[in-house]
Amino acid sequence: MGHIVVINGPNLNLLGQRQPDTYGTDNLESINQRVAAAAAAAGATCEFFQSNIEGELVDAIQAAASANGVILNAGAYSHYSIAIRDAIAAINTPVVEAHISNIYAREEFRHRSAIAAVCLGSIAGFGAGSYLLALQALLALEEND
Amino acid sequence: MGHIVVINGPNLNLLGQRQPDTYGTDNLESINQRVAAAAAAAGATCEFFQSNIEGELVDAIQAAASANGVILNAGAYSHYSIAIRDAIAAINTPVVEAHISNIYAREEFRHRSAIAAVCLGSIAGFGAGSYLLALQALLALEEND
Amino acid sequence: MGHIVVINGPNLNLLGQRQPDTYGTDNLESINQRVAAAAAAAGATCEFFQSNIEGELVDAIQAAASANGVILNAGAYSHYSIAIRDAIAAINTPVVEAHISNIYAREEFRHRSAIAAVCLGSIAGFGAGSYLLALQALLALEEND
Amino acid sequence: MGHIVVINGPNLNLLGQRQPDTYGTDNLESINQRVAAAAAAAGATCEFFQSNIEGELVDAIQAAASANGVILNAGAYSHYSIAIRDAIAAINTPVVEAHISNIYAREEFRHRSAIAAVCLGSIAGFGAGSYLLALQALLALEEND
Amino acid sequence: MGHIVVINGPNLNLLGQRQPDTYGTDNLESINQRVAAAAAAAGATCEFFQSNIEGELVDAIQAAASANGVILNAGAYSHYSIAIRDAIAAINTPVVEAHISNIYAREEFRHRSAIAAVCLGSIAGFGAGSYLLALQALLALEEND
Amino acid sequence: MGHIVVINGPNLNLLGQRQPDTYGTDNLESINQRVAAAAAAAGATCEFFQSNIEGELVDAIQAAASANGVILNAGAYSHYSIAIRDAIAAINTPVVEAHISNIYAREEFRHRSAIAAVCLGSIAGFGAGSYLLALQALLALEEND
Amino acid sequence: MGHIVVINGPNLNLLGQRQPDTYGTDNLESINQRVAAAAAAAGATCEFFQSNIEGELVDAIQAAASANGVILNAGAYSHYSIAIRDAIAAINTPVVEAHISNIYAREEFRHRSAIAAVCLGSIAGFGAGSYLLALQALLALEEND
Amino acid sequence: MGHIVVINGPNLNLLGQRQPDTYGTDNLESINQRVAAAAAAAGATCEFFQSNIEGELVDAIQAAASANGVILNAGAYSHYSIAIRDAIAAINTPVVEAHISNIYAREEFRHRSAIAAVCLGSIAGFGAGSYLLALQALLALEEND
Amino acid sequence: MGHIVVINGPNLNLLGQRQPDTYGTDNLESINQRVAAAAAAAGATCEFFQSNIEGELVDAIQAAASANGVILNAGAYSHYSIAIRDAIAAINTPVVEAHISNIYAREEFRHRSAIAAVCLGSIAGFGAGSYLLALQALLALEEND
Amino acid sequence: MGHIVVINGPNLNLLGQRQPDTYGTDNLESINQRVAAAAAAAGATCEFFQSNIEGELVDAIQAAASANGVILNAGAYSHYSIAIRDAIAAINTPVVEAHISNIYAREEFRHRSAIAAVCLGSIAGFGAGSYLLALQALLALEEND
Amino acid sequence: MGHIVVINGPNLNLLGQRQPDTYGTDNLESINQRVAAAAAAAGATCEFFQSNIEGELVDAIQAAASANGVILNAGAYSHYSIAIRDAIAAINTPVVEAHISNIYAREEFRHRSAIAAVCLGSIAGFGAGSYLLALQALLALEEND
Amino acid sequence: MGHIVVINGPNLNLLGQRQPDTYGTDNLESINQRVAAAAAAAGATCEFFQSNIEGELVDAIQAAASANGVILNAGAYSHYSIAIRDAIAAINTPVVEAHISNIYAREEFRHRSAIAAVCLGSIAGFGAGSYLLALQALLALEEND
Repeated sequence: MGHIVVINGPNLNLLGQRQPDTYGTDNLESINQRVAAAAAAAGATCEFFQSNIEGELVDAIQAAASANGVILNAGAYSHYSIAIRDAIAAINTPVVEAHISNIYAREEFRHRSAIAAVCLGSIAGFGAGSYLLALQALLALEEND
Repeated sequence: MGHIVVINGPNLNLLGQRQPDTYGTDNLESINQRVAAAAAAAGATCEFFQSNIEGELVDAIQAAASANGVILNAGAYSHYSIAIRDAIAAINTPVVEAHISNIYAREEFRHRSAIAAVCLGSIAGFGAGSYLLALQALLALEEND
Repeated sequence: MGHIVVINGPNLNLLGQRQPDTYGTDNLESINQRVAAAAAAAGATCEFFQSNIEGELVDAIQAAASANGVILNAGAYSHYSIAIRDAIAAINTPVVEAHISNIYAREEFRHRSAIAAVCLGSIAGFGAGSYLLALQALLALEEND
Repeated sequence: MGHIVVINGPNLNLLGQRQPDTYGTDNLESINQRVAAAAAAAGATCEFFQSNIEGELVDAIQAAASANGVILNAGAYSHYSIAIRDAIAAINTPVVEAHISNIYAREEFRHRSAIAAVCLGSIAGFGAGSYLLALQALLALEEND
Repeated sequence: MGHIVVINGPNLNLLGQRQPDTYGTDNLESINQRVAAAAAAAGATCEFFQSNIEGELVDAIQAAASANGVILNAGAYSHYSIAIRDAIAAINTPVVEAHISNIYAREEFRHRSAIAAVCLGSIAGFGAGSYLLALQALLALEEND
Repeated sequence: MGHIVVINGPNLNLLGQRQPDTYGTDNLESINQRVAAAAAAAGATCEFFQSNIEGELVDAIQAAASANGVILNAGAYSHYSIAIRDAIAAINTPVVEAHISNIYAREEFRHRSAIAAVCLGSIAGFGAGSYLLALQALLALEEND
Repeated sequence: MGHIVVINGPNLNLLGQRQPDTYGTDNLESINQRVAAAAAAAGATCEFFQSNIEGELVDAIQAAASANGVILNAGAYSHYSIAIRDAIAAINTPVVEAHISNIYAREEFRHRSAIAAVCLGSIAGFGAGSYLLALQALLALEEND
Repeated sequence: MGHIVVINGPNLNLLGQRQPDTYGTDNLESINQRVAAAAAAAGATCEFFQSNIEGELVDAIQAAASANGVILNAGAYSHYSIAIRDAIAAINTPVVEAHISNIYAREEFRHRSAIAAVCLGSIAGFGAGSYLLALQALLALEEND
Repeated sequence: MGHIVVINGPNLNLLGQRQPDTYGTDNLESINQRVAAAAAAAGATCEFFQSNIEGELVDAIQAAASANGVILNAGAYSHYSIAIRDAIAAINTPVVEAHISNIYAREEFRHRSAIAAVCLGSIAGFGAGSYLLALQALLALEEND
Repeated sequence: MGHIVVINGPNLNLLGQRQPDTYGTDNLESINQRVAAAAAAAGATCEFFQSNIEGELVDAIQAAASANGVILNAGAYSHYSIAIRDAIAAINTPVVEAHISNIYAREEFRHRSAIAAVCLGSIAGFGAGSYLLALQALLALEEND
Repeated sequence: MGHIVVINGPNLNLLGQRQPDTYGTDNLESINQRVAAAAAAAGATCEFFQSNIEGELVDAIQAAASANGVILNAGAYSHYSIAIRDAIAAINTPVVEAHISNIYAREEFRHRSAIAAVCLGSIAGFGAGSYLLALQALLALEEND
Repeated sequence: MGHIVVINGPNLNLLGQRQPDTYGTDNLESINQRVAAAAAAAGATCEFFQSNIEGELVDAIQAAASANGVILNAGAYSHYSIAIRDAIAAINTPVVEAHISNIYAREEFRHRSAIAAVCLGSIAGFGAGSYLLALQALLALEEND
């Protein structure tokens, strides 16, 4: 029913340990399992990628060109990576931007997204739930096709 | 199981007629029905409010202080209404900001939100689906309580 | 031969009394009568609306969707109301922006228009004459059809 | 001995309930009573108006053209309402801007006033006391006449 | 009954050939003839000048010091020529700024006028009609004298 | 019943002579006497300090650490003295910022206060009355303790 | 095989004498000869124009409407001449922007080009070689046709 | 003993007629005569040039390369002409910038000089006297050689 | 006769597939072959490197310290990579910045180059031809030595 | 025949020792003597003041209220001292701003003057000569009275 | 007695070869040896890491979570890497920012640090000495525990 | 072995009492003693100066022209005092900027230093330790001579 690639950027490998007041206590592994389970329930498959390296995220987005959707939390790179923006624009797969924290309630420099303009849409502030909502958004696209 | 107030701001009464390339062809009534149905399926109730008047949106947000959640598409006011921001900050009900279009792919002045900082989270770019995802986000909160 | 809606925004109900050096000594009623007379002479009809409330101006613009043209002096809202901008963009009726004073010769914040980009054109600085010129502009459109 | 109009803007109807760390625990009714009592002690009369709607505040300011003074807490609109600024400039009544909180110790966007330039003066940061000081300022004007 | 000077700036000699989607298909000669005819109908005379050279426009404005009005489309120079601004300020003749296209619906740098502050008023967005409206505005001044 | 220190900054020693349209005709001595009288009437004592030297104002604020309140008109330094700001923040005494003129109705650079954020509150625009209102504000604090 | 117009702007008539560290020691005549020779070698013809007057550059660009390509070094005007920009946009001939010096290694105000957006492409920093490269770029276009 | 070129820019040909409150009542001819007389008294010769055309001012500055000094009042072009700046930088003759009015006491856009950085020095605000002081400055240079 | 290193940055591995309206239909392999052929014709050798990783581009630039020239299309990193800028500044090899598209005709953020100031020169807008022109520029340097 | 006060600000006591490339090799004493001699030759008297303390410069300007003119080199304070600006505005004596170096050819922050707007005029870039020219400017005023 | 990780960013592998006027003639190896020796003298151990890749620096910082201190010279990434900032914030180890050159005496873009806010402190401008001072700072922390 | 002058600016006389969360609990006297002891241990002598007056800090820096080094904590003046900057630039003694708190982790206005560009280097964030590190930095200079 579709294949979804979930891509996480810098420092998201530390989820669960890193500033829990901001990012919650779930680690990335457990979030990924919940996303995989929800995808499976909808008949879709998932694969997961995390890197702290901007260019590896570019690689991963390019590699997702044949997937049915991408859930992307580019972490800090969201705010300045034109390279990631260009990778999203270079593929036809719909990409949903997801953020764990409400980036608009934090430092000014987190209010600006270098990538949102070329994503399908953005979801921020729901903790691990942001990934699940992004998955729903992508599955709904599939349904509408 | 919870009561959700859905508040729509200026020009959203024209949904379906207004710039369909940007806002889609669903009218507000049909979107509201889909939200109500999804809420009902989850055992929750919904009520709906739309106004073109900034201060009436302030009133409606204040009136939602005893609801379990608010879905707010403040339309154009999202970008400059500190009055609406203050109303959200004044109540304890979680408010989810929803936008039909991907505001980050449009004019520069739509990239800035005057209200996102005091909302629980933000969802933009999924058409009518943005409301349904916002509902899921609020229902998930309830479940987690 | 056409129906023109003339919409005036905040504080324009005080024309004639309010800062006459800037806004002249004609009151709104007498300006409206001159516009109506000029329209009648050209076989067109006019209706007039004034409100100090931003959202009521949005309502009025939406209601003018079936008119042949709108003359809009949004007053102070011209400089920041994205809600009014969106209402203009949402209808197909040509809207002419009119200002009594030369807004470019006044405070810096009056030099910027939030609505001009979605109007057919703009006329400023001719006192009550700005409305009459706006009417000519709209009538000329009709003639050219 | 003079008639004073006290005008409160958006969300000030929630005083006492709303963010008490910022706005204190007095509700608007009790503040108004204290202002009325202080005015009466000085032989002046007061009337009170509150609205969440920008344009109704414009209306109220226009209606105060024959009063001896206006105490205006325009709340969030203080920071962006050119419409309210124009209403103040359109009347000859002295208007004193009052704020409960010290707006300069809060978010950057609250440091800028769209209306202070056309008021007689400004008072901020003294809680309910700001209204009483504003009243003193207006009564002192009367005395000096 | 009055003498009007119509001054056109850079690239307006190409009207009719140049980007017709923006500037229409009328050439400058035919527009001038329509303006001359309308002036004649009102008992006024016209003269026409066009140059691509900023300083020659300064010369032409200075030379119009004894005319009854100037219609000025300074083209690109409108956005940065303080020299032209100073020429307008140096004469007592009323100058009306005219633009064929709606400059506010185009690139950001066209939204700012270096000259509007010293003109009587501005008219933009009505194609060749902008000149005719500017003429009406100047003739109306004469009538009011 | 309390001890209040009144500190005046640069050029306020010229009050009464200096630009009377802006600053009024009262000299500093007479204003101080009115403040002292009002304080005495409330059972409080006052002391007065004026200097044109930024660092001496810092000294005076530090020296007021044991007073019950400070009325500070830092004059021009209000707009850029972080040194004075730091002195205010370094003491626990409540400081009220006072300005004779309405600084928001004057040059742009007077709209910004470097010190307001660390004061209790601000009062501007009431001439010599600004000091008397500041005194009332401080006395009211005492009463509420 | 094509006709190329080479247009040089202000102060480029001084090449060879003017700040040789920045602009080299070749004079304009010798550069033109090298460009003409290279064009002749490719079977193309060249003509050359230089003026210090912005509007004459506008004229020259308009006159090049029937050429096969324009090499334009607008000198200082590159950074602010919207008039030249509009002339380039008004013709269909491809225009290549050339600069002798690396404008990005010089003052901030030379980093911005008012004309690059409407040129085919830009070449900067290769001394006299910038013109020869621009010629190659235009000749290559011809070849591809 | 030296040869001085006095170059005046746009609208300075109108001195004496143009806004006398700002520019005084001396016309350019009489100012030039006073400068010539003062130069002659010091054994120096003068020549005078005025143009409203930016590029002709560039030409004139280039032509002054062999003079002993240039007095330049570039008028409005002072604030934006990088072309004139480059001409000054291209010659070795010392250039003194002169302004009749105090440009710092006028509109914000007159506070910035595009040319001062490459002049020897600047003199502004002394009416016709600014030219005489500029002459003294240049003659003093000669003396010091 | 010289050795040239051609370095391509993020997403340039997708040339030919990626947004062909902007980047053309040539793939990177075929462009490289054309550059290699042109170099060989001039007796020079080439080597090619592409990476999506900013730091690997830094490595490649450092490794080119002994080459005779570098052609660098840093893609999106051109606009913000100070790390790449520092690598260019750290070697003595001349580096030519090349861009396929006319970056000045695209989004605002592509108008600024973080690296141009430390390159020999820049070439943009000629499609695959930009690389060939950059090669010519470097070969011409060799010839001039 | 008049009394002139020459006021020098911070670090000008080091003239002759301090960065001679920028400030020359004359010390302040010798400059003062030259100014005194030139004044005496014109029948005027001079007095001299220097301080590194902003507030003492304010004092000195206030004290010059009865002089016939002030020559003020406020040094670094020129760029940010609103206190000094206010002192100049507070007296009726004409004040001429003088600078030894061409401040417009130095760091960006030296291009802005906080005081020029309230001075009679400004002279910069002529070394010690700036003071002598300022003196001439003041003496000329006297002559014209 | 503690373990210190020394992390160097892009182009610092070229120390000793790269722009010696800015970065000195010590190579990284010799600096590391001096730091190691100084650490050993204080009973502490050191490890060293250098990478040109932003994400590898993120990895290295994460890996230093169990060290007693980090000395970080993030080179160019200091000025824009929010990813590195987030890595520093994610660990509890104190991080000292070190720079060889005085970044405040260089280009504007080097004055801003994206990471300083989350470091313990910053040291810049002392050449290789900056690392040794950073070590002292970290060792002093240990002593104080 | 060298003489070091330690200069402290505004409000640093309050160390130990003033906001201890930001500035620690050491008072200035005890810090000075620690610095003096460390200097003595290295065979150097120290002298100490503190003032709240900007110009007295200028005086003290000038007076340190013959010392071997200056440790300067200019406190709030660090962020805006061009006068202090000029004093540092006027002497040849190396000056190290020291800050107790991490100024980059505090308000935006503390992120900018007006003086760092002319200091040898900067140290911030190590409490009293910042002075000791600055001393080490200066002593190391001596050793290297």
